[in-house]
Amino acid sequence: MAEFDLIERFRQRAGQRADVILGIGDDAALLRVPPDALLVVSADTLVAGVHFPDDTAAADIGWKALAVNLSDLAAMAAKPAWATLCLTLPQAHEDWVDAFLDGFLELAAQHDVALVGGDTTRGPLSISVTVHGFAPAGQALRRSGAKAGDDIWVTGTIGDAAGGLAQWQRQGLMSAKLRHRLDRPTPRNEAALAVRGLAHAAIDLSDGLAADLGHMLRQSGVGADLDLGRLPTSRSLADHFPGEAERWTLQLTGGDDYELCFTAAPADALAIEQAFAALDLTATVVGQISSALGLRLNTPEGEAFVLPQAGFEHFREPT
Amino acid sequence: MAEFDLIERFRQRAGQRADVILGIGDDAALLRVPPDALLVVSADTLVAGVHFPDDTAAADIGWKALAVNLSDLAAMAAKPAWATLCLTLPQAHEDWVDAFLDGFLELAAQHDVALVGGDTTRGPLSISVTVHGFAPAGQALRRSGAKAGDDIWVTGTIGDAAGGLAQWQRQGLMSAKLRHRLDRPTPRNEAALAVRGLAHAAIDLSDGLAADLGHMLRQSGVGADLDLGRLPTSRSLADHFPGEAERWTLQLTGGDDYELCFTAAPADALAIEQAFAALDLTATVVGQISSALGLRLNTPEGEAFVLPQAGFEHFREPT
Repeated sequence: MAEFDLIERFRQRAGQRADVILGIGDDAALLRVPPDALLVVSADTLVAGVHFPDDTAAADIGWKALAVNLSDLAAMAAKPAWATLCLTLPQAHEDWVDAFLDGFLELAAQHDVALVGGDTTRGPLSISVTVHGFAPAGQALRRSGAKAGDDIWVTGTIGDAAGGLAQWQRQGLMSAKLRHRLDRPTPRNEAALAVRGLAHAAIDLSDGLAADLGHMLRQSGVGADLDLGRLPTSRSLADHFPGEAERWTLQLTGGDDYELCFTAAPADALAIEQAFAALDLTATVVGQISSALGLRLNTPEGEAFVLPQAGFEHFREPT
Repeated sequence: MAEFDLIERFRQRAGQRADVILGIGDDAALLRVPPDALLVVSADTLVAGVHFPDDTAAADIGWKALAVNLSDLAAMAAKPAWATLCLTLPQAHEDWVDAFLDGFLELAAQHDVALVGGDTTRGPLSISVTVHGFAPAGQALRRSGAKAGDDIWVTGTIGDAAGGLAQWQRQGLMSAKLRHRLDRPTPRNEAALAVRGLAHAAIDLSDGLAADLGHMLRQSGVGADLDLGRLPTSRSLADHFPGEAERWTLQLTGGDDYELCFTAAPADALAIEQAFAALDLTATVVGQISSALGLRLNTPEGEAFVLPQAGFEHFREPT
């Protein structure tokens, strides 16, 4: 495939929105932002062998490339709108590109996101996506808003993706459910919009709860106490990683969950639970924000310790 | 350097604008678009060994990564505002990153562009930038507006970057001026804004005049006659490539000029010349748009021929 054919392929499948005045095919896209909204912009790259195992299916790579970006919009409680896609490929195999777009556009359609531009170029496989969304002025969630006394909430279950990656690295028995959570993370955009008026601060869990919560604590000038016994755990993770220490390590320091972590006043807990019930999604209080700096981890047996605040570090060795 | 240190480095040097409500450091940036403007968005990737020679200085790579993107905004006659930067690096050497930012931010400052977000990750060197600008609704230039009878204009001189690349590939005598044009292209944003009310269509010259003009012709449903003897040629290019055939080939099919090509009514030629005189930049009429489809190349000796419409093709072999 020549580059022109690739662009034409993207153009035909890009999706439509009324606010896309001019999409793929010119030097730039022309887009209309609602007059009462702020534009919310985030960008993330996936590199083969670093952000996904080399044997990941093309459709899953496409899905994940958009998912990790939508997750950043979720963390700001912004409504997604548009994406640009910079795709670097060793070869432009038609089947691979189509499968990649299948995954990317399946998720895009779920969130009413139009692909409005980008670039295809030759080189080692990597994907950089920039996403754009809207939030009413003053309503976007930030990392810096956590207050002492807040509950710390986490959506869904955590540690699954890290469990899937650990199994892949060991090349032993693998759980299809855990691997699916690694390959097809679900960005929590609807959940974020549902708690926009209730949450004080939010971050998405890309690098592990300890590291990501650590960012929030530092930017908010507060500390936290986590109850390890309350970390939301899938049946698959519990079955495949029965030892608490290993499981907690996966849940605290493993990346790629893309669940939402947010804080809110305890008085709003019921409203939050009702909002999540309406979305058919679980959310769990895993601890409390404290004015005492630091991140304290408490076991069900009453032990307390501190994990080094290290999560996924992008300059580690590739997997 | 750890990723956190990198992000902090970017944050401190990102530049400021009043419309950046929240910049680097959260999950996404919060930005305010002027109420009467459309948002103009473009994204381009540079890959080492494909889009720049492997020996290119870090500062030049930084400059070029932003320049090629600003050039796309110029082609739409949009005023630049913000950029996101996805930087993939084999190692995070402090000196390299600082030099890269020196080049990137030197050009950003010239165009009042703030760096508002992005990602740093480990992998083979590549840089994906997404730029954002504004254009009043209805005033953005498109590729599709060329009209039969229009003059075809080109800013500056063309072929210099291709000449520099050709010399580098041959590893013989090299012109520092040509190499500089390859490494530090000048996006023509001011020129584009100056002719916004006069030009009918525009495109930036990234892949060579023949290919890029070809896009404009196809999207406008017209053809063109080019006068090869009028192609604007630098003294350096003429000195180092004295043979017409080789020089014309560089000018027509060589990439990386990032000059602006636009069309306008002949009646506006004087106004356009005056606008460029005020910018201390040359612009040259190199041909005319025609209702007869196809791209006809006319030599000063009265020969006419047609070059294959092939410019820079991203799935060629890396240089």
